Amino acid sequence: MKIYLAGPDVFLPDAVAIGRRKAEICVRHGLTGLYPLDNTVDLAAADASLAIFRGNEAMMDAADAIIANLTPFRGPGADAGTVYELGYMAGRGKFCLAYSNDPTVYADRVTRYFPVTRSAQGHLVDGDGLAVEDFGLPDNLMMIHTLDLHGARLVTPRQAPADIWHDLTSFEACVALAADRAISKSNSNNPD
Amino acid sequence: MKIYLAGPDVFLPDAVAIGRRKAEICVRHGLTGLYPLDNTVDLAAADASLAIFRGNEAMMDAADAIIANLTPFRGPGADAGTVYELGYMAGRGKFCLAYSNDPTVYADRVTRYFPVTRSAQGHLVDGDGLAVEDFGLPDNLMMIHTLDLHGARLVTPRQAPADIWHDLTSFEACVALAADRAISKSNSNNPD
Repeated sequence: MKIYLAGPDVFLPDAVAIGRRKAEICVRHGLTGLYPLDNTVDLAAADASLAIFRGNEAMMDAADAIIANLTPFRGPGADAGTVYELGYMAGRGKFCLAYSNDPTVYADRVTRYFPVTRSAQGHLVDGDGLAVEDFGLPDNLMMIHTLDLHGARLVTPRQAPADIWHDLTSFEACVALAADRAISKSNSNNPD
Repeated sequence: MKIYLAGPDVFLPDAVAIGRRKAEICVRHGLTGLYPLDNTVDLAAADASLAIFRGNEAMMDAADAIIANLTPFRGPGADAGTVYELGYMAGRGKFCLAYSNDPTVYADRVTRYFPVTRSAQGHLVDGDGLAVEDFGLPDNLMMIHTLDLHGARLVTPRQAPADIWHDLTSFEACVALAADRAISKSNSNNPD
């Protein structure tokens, strides 16, 4: 089983090293991790961003599953590129897994970044008058429930690890879920 | 042609009214707009968020195209639910359109919200040491280039309108693009 390794990990100073660690964990579970930085892109080229897009899309199309790192990224929610990729893989009917190293509730995190009040009707509202999604979920409901219905429930630790960008415990739990799925699929293809 | 109307519009105080205005614009162009709040959901039910998810997914599956409102939402980038939906529709091979009422560049907006410095190598880096995507694009490259390749270029005004949440000029430009596509598809199906 090939797994697309999505996440803002690509923006870390040691982005290549963390991708290597993730790929090694996949190998240990009998799986193949596909990491965006494995694509060779000339970042100095005028069309570098388009080359990155094409590389990532081809990798997603080649993969059977996605493990998305939905750890909040520069704000209360997940990285936009990762969210896009989770949606894309759900749309393609692939097996969708994700983890977040921050187990807190989305609405609580919003109140840490933005002025939020409670309306007379009891709804959370931000400074521009826009409602804050308040279902007690760890992030936007479209991401959380696509995992529930098209893969497995978001994996989170009981409490955030000391290093949210390098702790791969929850990532490895996702890899184990993917390995279980790969075994059960191979058994169902081979009934005797 | 049925168009899924994605966006943080659903979080506005007048969310139903703006959906009605969008649907009316679609009708004027000979198209049908599908708006998430057209689904009936009991918000007091324990599984309300799952019901919303199922309703939105069924609407997307029924639609031929998406028009996503990518106007920055509570931070420098687009709303996560909308980004997920754009990815989902791209994955399903649907026609992907989007607009943003903020024509500025993503990297510039990040510097308005977060402390950003330039590294010795010339890269933009945030306070946690994570790189800031800096290709001169209006948002994350996965969204921008999926539009280029699977629909039409992101529609933005020359300058932000006075009311970024209620001005539908760029939305209507997307509807016109969808109507052109519907006509050209119907002509190609009907060659005589």
